[in-house]
Amino acid sequence: MKAEIIAVGTELLLGQIVNTNAQYIAQGCASIGLNVYYQTVVGDNRERIRQSFSLAASRADVIIATGGLGPTQDDLTKDALSELFGLPISIHGPSMEKITAVFQSRGIEMVKSNERQANVLEGCTPLANDNGLAVGVALTHEGTHYILLPGPPKEMKPMFDQYAVPWIRSVMGEEASPLYSKMLKFAGIGESSLEHRLIDLIDGQQDPTIAPYAKEGEVSIRLTTRACSEAEAERKLADTEREIRSRVGEYIYADRDVPIEYELVSMLIAAGRTVALAESCTGGLVSEMLTAVPGSSAAYRGGIVCYTNEAKKELLGVPAHVLEGEGAPGAISSETAILLAQNAMERTGADYALSVTGVAGPAESEGKPVGLVYLGVAERGKPAEAMKLQLSGNREAIRLKAAKQALYVLWQRLKH
Amino acid sequence: MKAEIIAVGTELLLGQIVNTNAQYIAQGCASIGLNVYYQTVVGDNRERIRQSFSLAASRADVIIATGGLGPTQDDLTKDALSELFGLPISIHGPSMEKITAVFQSRGIEMVKSNERQANVLEGCTPLANDNGLAVGVALTHEGTHYILLPGPPKEMKPMFDQYAVPWIRSVMGEEASPLYSKMLKFAGIGESSLEHRLIDLIDGQQDPTIAPYAKEGEVSIRLTTRACSEAEAERKLADTEREIRSRVGEYIYADRDVPIEYELVSMLIAAGRTVALAESCTGGLVSEMLTAVPGSSAAYRGGIVCYTNEAKKELLGVPAHVLEGEGAPGAISSETAILLAQNAMERTGADYALSVTGVAGPAESEGKPVGLVYLGVAERGKPAEAMKLQLSGNREAIRLKAAKQALYVLWQRLKH
Repeated sequence: MKAEIIAVGTELLLGQIVNTNAQYIAQGCASIGLNVYYQTVVGDNRERIRQSFSLAASRADVIIATGGLGPTQDDLTKDALSELFGLPISIHGPSMEKITAVFQSRGIEMVKSNERQANVLEGCTPLANDNGLAVGVALTHEGTHYILLPGPPKEMKPMFDQYAVPWIRSVMGEEASPLYSKMLKFAGIGESSLEHRLIDLIDGQQDPTIAPYAKEGEVSIRLTTRACSEAEAERKLADTEREIRSRVGEYIYADRDVPIEYELVSMLIAAGRTVALAESCTGGLVSEMLTAVPGSSAAYRGGIVCYTNEAKKELLGVPAHVLEGEGAPGAISSETAILLAQNAMERTGADYALSVTGVAGPAESEGKPVGLVYLGVAERGKPAEAMKLQLSGNREAIRLKAAKQALYVLWQRLKH
Repeated sequence: MKAEIIAVGTELLLGQIVNTNAQYIAQGCASIGLNVYYQTVVGDNRERIRQSFSLAASRADVIIATGGLGPTQDDLTKDALSELFGLPISIHGPSMEKITAVFQSRGIEMVKSNERQANVLEGCTPLANDNGLAVGVALTHEGTHYILLPGPPKEMKPMFDQYAVPWIRSVMGEEASPLYSKMLKFAGIGESSLEHRLIDLIDGQQDPTIAPYAKEGEVSIRLTTRACSEAEAERKLADTEREIRSRVGEYIYADRDVPIEYELVSMLIAAGRTVALAESCTGGLVSEMLTAVPGSSAAYRGGIVCYTNEAKKELLGVPAHVLEGEGAPGAISSETAILLAQNAMERTGADYALSVTGVAGPAESEGKPVGLVYLGVAERGKPAEAMKLQLSGNREAIRLKAAKQALYVLWQRLKH
């Protein structure tokens, strides 16, 4: 079956918002084997909305629209379709009761136009809106299947997933062939280096498909396959995963979409251990990532942001002769990284400490190049160690990569 | 004039990427008074690309397309248009030279298909690609104006801004009536409270338009007007800005799109002052924001992330009897906020210190509700103060709002 997506809204044509709805719906269609051939955006104009549906009906079997279901005079999708099909608008009783009740409970007088949100096309299957007031519509007319969804993503997404997709699957019948996918999450390896080591697999991919991508300092690979059953999908995905693990398994920290800080906090809690941070060039980012994890207080002992040499001396006791003066290693050095980690561990009483010191840019520092970063790691009862990284990208990217790499270093140590 | 945007790429139809190009181009069109009536997405299919252009030509004066200019056999936009118009493809000499030179300089043998990136339609104006290899096209054919841009945003955006927009303005002639806009940035006030105080202006807006929005803990208002000259635009924008300032001026920290941490760092540097941080519930976020500003080492003295009570005691000397035990104020209290700020200032030698302690959620803490946050502010030679906030949203939103509010508190103090 062929599908089209129509997004209705002048704000999209003006570029005031980006059309994330189309992407979300497109992904949903792909996941059930429904092929999308076109996406269209049209403004809040009755005539042009009608023309868009008419054109879509001439080339697609399933048309999924979002937007234009709200209470205002600019919300015209249902009216346009009613005109196009010559089908009257009727009121969906349960939706109308819900709208009335919501206004009553808020103690606000309901403006008449709000009733429009209970409108449906006669003979349709209404789609419940669990996160808003405008009811959705599923309708088969002259052999073409239509879905009307609200525009706000927080209303659209659950309605699509919970009510529209099952309805579409039912009209697709045996044509619906679900996609199964699995995410592998990597740390400690860059995207290009990962791709390089898997290039023959990526280039030769057929089924499962192998899609690597990098986002916010993390690298992921999504494996996707189409299968008749979960068991078949699992078998196909497992074969590919095994091959990937045999080459780069040491960098895989999770087989689901989770940031490394969540994995690390879980491991620390399970081990009954805590970590402290001493951050120079990352400026608190590692601490921020760790404490973003709910429950992290059991694993995160404390952190010091020693962005300046003064702070390295005052807050973490790094001797001046290490930081400054001719022949000194300087703030950006393995010596400093080791002292920062060691002293952060001692001052906080943590079991481990990580330190990050380097040049995030935009300009070089101490005559050292942008992207040069030293990580320190301390562990109770062992000598602290440091490692050197040369990272690429702008200031933000270098900070992000350095922070993720520091988390990976501790993750790796805990794992072994 | 009417315009349409066509994005070419199967990855868009599959939902693998979001169509940010359409938004970018739509904004650009709006800014020169060019009305976009439709946006379309079509896959890498010659026949459907041709049909999309043919349809667009039947309803628009200007058609702006992105994608499908690359080297592979899936890059079909120029071929499809060549067929549709019966115009031969020719080679753009300078682009071909550039492509050859790039491969030579990299020491890689050039695959023949790369030559396709120098293709243009005969009689067109080639648009230089300063960030990639595929040359763009501007062409007027049978009274309709066409622009072909590459798909990767980092190539598309500069080509659009620098070469396509001037070309479009030239074909629009006097119809091009630029939009002027101005951003007002707010801190210390929530979006709904801001809207409430400006509701009559927002509801009654005509020209300039007044668009409030909230993103990443910040609230902004964009004023936009269409005018024949910059002087006229400035006059119109100034009238509206004056009215807004008379109501909520105290919360405006900038009249351009800049995060408050940039303003704060500039003010601190100008005043020759430094700040230190003691963060509990924000976990390093305020430090991360401040140190994200290049040059912040002159203003940011250091920070302590005291997420646990142990860290509050060990790293910042908060007495146990303040934090724990029956009748103690607890970690989430104005007493603790004041001690954290005071001690952070003293231990770092900074001129100011900020502290943040509160309940980011998901669960309550010390029997105190999610969203309750105390900010402390210390200043050399003055008694430290605390203030209480009740913030809404999830864990991430509460942390973000608390961090921005802390920055605002210091900004306000420096301003007065």
